[in-house]
Amino acid sequence: MKRVSFIDLGSNSVRFVIIEINDNGSYQLIYQQKESIRLSENMWEKNRLTEEAIERAILTLKGFAHMAEAMDSHEIYAVATAAVRLAKNGDDFIRIVKERTGIDLECIDGSEEAFLGFLGVVNTIGLEDFILFDLGGASIEITLVNNRKVKQSVSLPMGALTLTGKFQKGEEMSDKERKTLLSYIQEILGKEKWLKNKQLPLVGIGGTVRNLAKIDQRAHNYPIAKLHNYELTYERLDEIYDMVCDKTLEQRRKIAGLSVERADIIIAGTALIRELMQFVDANTIRVSGCGLRDGMFYRYYGQHYMNPSGIIDNILTHSAENVLLGMVQCDLIHAKYITNLMTMLYDQWNAQYQWGDRMRELIQVAALLHDLGKSINYYGHARHSAYLIVNSNLYGLSHREQAICAFIAANSHGANNKFIKSSPYGHLLSIEDKAMLTQVSLMLALAEAIDESHEQSAVLVDTDFNDKTITITVWKKPGGNTSMAEVVINKLIKQCKKDFKKNLIVEWREAL
Amino acid sequence: MKRVSFIDLGSNSVRFVIIEINDNGSYQLIYQQKESIRLSENMWEKNRLTEEAIERAILTLKGFAHMAEAMDSHEIYAVATAAVRLAKNGDDFIRIVKERTGIDLECIDGSEEAFLGFLGVVNTIGLEDFILFDLGGASIEITLVNNRKVKQSVSLPMGALTLTGKFQKGEEMSDKERKTLLSYIQEILGKEKWLKNKQLPLVGIGGTVRNLAKIDQRAHNYPIAKLHNYELTYERLDEIYDMVCDKTLEQRRKIAGLSVERADIIIAGTALIRELMQFVDANTIRVSGCGLRDGMFYRYYGQHYMNPSGIIDNILTHSAENVLLGMVQCDLIHAKYITNLMTMLYDQWNAQYQWGDRMRELIQVAALLHDLGKSINYYGHARHSAYLIVNSNLYGLSHREQAICAFIAANSHGANNKFIKSSPYGHLLSIEDKAMLTQVSLMLALAEAIDESHEQSAVLVDTDFNDKTITITVWKKPGGNTSMAEVVINKLIKQCKKDFKKNLIVEWREAL
Repeated sequence: MKRVSFIDLGSNSVRFVIIEINDNGSYQLIYQQKESIRLSENMWEKNRLTEEAIERAILTLKGFAHMAEAMDSHEIYAVATAAVRLAKNGDDFIRIVKERTGIDLECIDGSEEAFLGFLGVVNTIGLEDFILFDLGGASIEITLVNNRKVKQSVSLPMGALTLTGKFQKGEEMSDKERKTLLSYIQEILGKEKWLKNKQLPLVGIGGTVRNLAKIDQRAHNYPIAKLHNYELTYERLDEIYDMVCDKTLEQRRKIAGLSVERADIIIAGTALIRELMQFVDANTIRVSGCGLRDGMFYRYYGQHYMNPSGIIDNILTHSAENVLLGMVQCDLIHAKYITNLMTMLYDQWNAQYQWGDRMRELIQVAALLHDLGKSINYYGHARHSAYLIVNSNLYGLSHREQAICAFIAANSHGANNKFIKSSPYGHLLSIEDKAMLTQVSLMLALAEAIDESHEQSAVLVDTDFNDKTITITVWKKPGGNTSMAEVVINKLIKQCKKDFKKNLIVEWREAL
Repeated sequence: MKRVSFIDLGSNSVRFVIIEINDNGSYQLIYQQKESIRLSENMWEKNRLTEEAIERAILTLKGFAHMAEAMDSHEIYAVATAAVRLAKNGDDFIRIVKERTGIDLECIDGSEEAFLGFLGVVNTIGLEDFILFDLGGASIEITLVNNRKVKQSVSLPMGALTLTGKFQKGEEMSDKERKTLLSYIQEILGKEKWLKNKQLPLVGIGGTVRNLAKIDQRAHNYPIAKLHNYELTYERLDEIYDMVCDKTLEQRRKIAGLSVERADIIIAGTALIRELMQFVDANTIRVSGCGLRDGMFYRYYGQHYMNPSGIIDNILTHSAENVLLGMVQCDLIHAKYITNLMTMLYDQWNAQYQWGDRMRELIQVAALLHDLGKSINYYGHARHSAYLIVNSNLYGLSHREQAICAFIAANSHGANNKFIKSSPYGHLLSIEDKAMLTQVSLMLALAEAIDESHEQSAVLVDTDFNDKTITITVWKKPGGNTSMAEVVINKLIKQCKKDFKKNLIVEWREAL
């Protein structure tokens, strides 16, 4: 086991994480801290970091260095972005940081910054082609991603803090100021012709976009406290933009979802994102809670544990296995056996009922993680598994898909309608979704029931459908006792009748 | 690590559990199954178990024996109660079970049955003096408990199944039949003068009382899917009794919360409980989800790991530590250090604010378990800890107290009002409760903040109160860096101002 620390020193805030990597290669965040130190404050007149800003940074970095040491993390990777990059005294600052905190701070250029943000996103958001932006305090990195590879990227020296400083003189932004701001943004964006009308989904990193998503969630009473992968439409962004422009600073400080320390710079940040959406002609933004610091981790993890690219092939499987391996009670062999057994059934039933390939992936995730909840309490473990599925770091799933996986797991020992009814995730699913879920869940419940004794004696299953009956033939290893399995299967017959309008017969045969 | 199986073969149902005991002495349920095999069905004319009932039992027990073997549990303890005890062919049955399943079934007498039920309850419900009853299919055990010791007990040969068989000829119970039933119960109870008007709280075990609690919960949309420790009042029991008497069997099968296979025997069972409440003059019943099988486990655990009595001294601390030790990510040393630091603060602040001794115990449990949620996800770990606290096997807490512990944990890094607002457990707390919780939570958040770096450098804390200011002096080991702690403490100053109307100052001093 080892613990590695990563620091991302931005122009507005600094982030610090410690990630524990276990001997089996699984990993998890064990500490994080974020401070709004505003390193770039008052630097733009002379393009120099001020004494005060440097002192704030040193104090915080000293604390992080101490914390890493205290938590037994002896490797620290730290990068600095736009503020240090653009400051004339950036090199001095790096030297002072080394002297006073011991941290080797690396000032990265815009393309590396863009690449690390890309790595953080490509490994945690399940899209192949998209435009990524990372809007910080003093710069925005925009990256065109095709087939999960960086096609082109640019770092533009405008951010939420610098645009505010440049175009907003008082606490509010006048109409005239706003007009100048918009023309300025349009002029700079206009030069990036490779982005024009790309019509790809946008993925956004950074405090501004996270805050916009939170405002939207709070305005709609969104039932889930989760930002990563949240979708924000252009219409809503536009409404929020109008709202923040219309309010005074004092009023903005009270907007639900907007953090107090961002109330002053939210207008310029929102304007930039809005212009970008128009420019690339995107309807929605996917918010990413993962960014540069995660990219730093994946680069490290790739180099030491996986492949040098740092890009995970299948993020859904990878993250599901990572969650599983991090749990004490996990029984990986049982989980994988059930997943395979369930998949065999699914392929046979899907030929009749056509639920599709994506559902096949979702039910596989649910199968892999269906027993996680036993680590909380055996009683109710199916619904505890559902809780863990929606709250663990499972990547490559939209919120709706997370709900689907959770509900399939909740149904893994038979339909659990009460849970689906009471869970806040129920809001994300339509009535048709729920009916389909109840159907596909039966395959997982059947796989569980067939291997009730955890002996893995079934070697093959075959399903035969006719007008009135579904007959499953289970070929099992010779010997053994199937009475417990039969008891549990009997409880599913009624569910089959209800959801498929057919009798269910399970026949046992001995394989050679 | 070893796994031990326990079987409780009752007159109505048979229960099977496998419990895993770790090398560190912590334990958890890893498998359970319950079958309604109705061993006593049709036995009362000749007082003999029927061939059919025996076959059903053998088939199920064979499955359990196989399951235990498959799950690597090589010790099975199995007891049979009233049906086998009262059947003329009980000995034959035990011999057949041994021959055909390999299980050594032990037929226990009424006082042992009562004692095991007592052990299951005394270790999982935090009462000192109470009257326990275990209402099964063919008998009821009633036990008077004083100071957590059995004072007297009796096993009466009447149960939900036998009373139904004896007094209810058709699917419904006629008024006349009911009258006869009630006189019969009154006559039998009347002989137990040591129970008359005891006015102690009743604790109930068994399917009947569990079903009554479920009916009550469903009727009130009770927000929590948990029966253990649920309180059912006499008024509600009486209403439910009237309701089940008024309905036909077909209608009873549709009562929300009542299991279909119990719809036929619920009237007699409810009548018996109602008469018992009147006889001992109890206002409420505490429902216990733990019973005989848990008692069997605690007897075993006491003999092999603890003390021969099988009675745990402090069930709250014991179960909290058991939950903690069962979690992979637990850091027992940090958890105990934070608990001690928090307790020191609590005692100083409690002298001013008088929250009391029970709150001291509750906040200690919250402190011990406040970091559990990190095993789910670092982000949001305080609310994950809250989820784990209400869903783990934590004993000695009422549902309201579980909510209190959960909310304190949710506040362990500062007030989390959103969580308290959205959690179903919020329904259990009054506005005053919530205000008090926010106050006491600050002590845990402060303890956490003081040891932010997990170095345990604080050796003593002292609090001084004056009109405007609360000053905490932290005596810490020489050296070290308190900047991270200060960052986190700063975030709590606002909360202190809001909840205590005072400034908060933390001063650091070096101890020798």
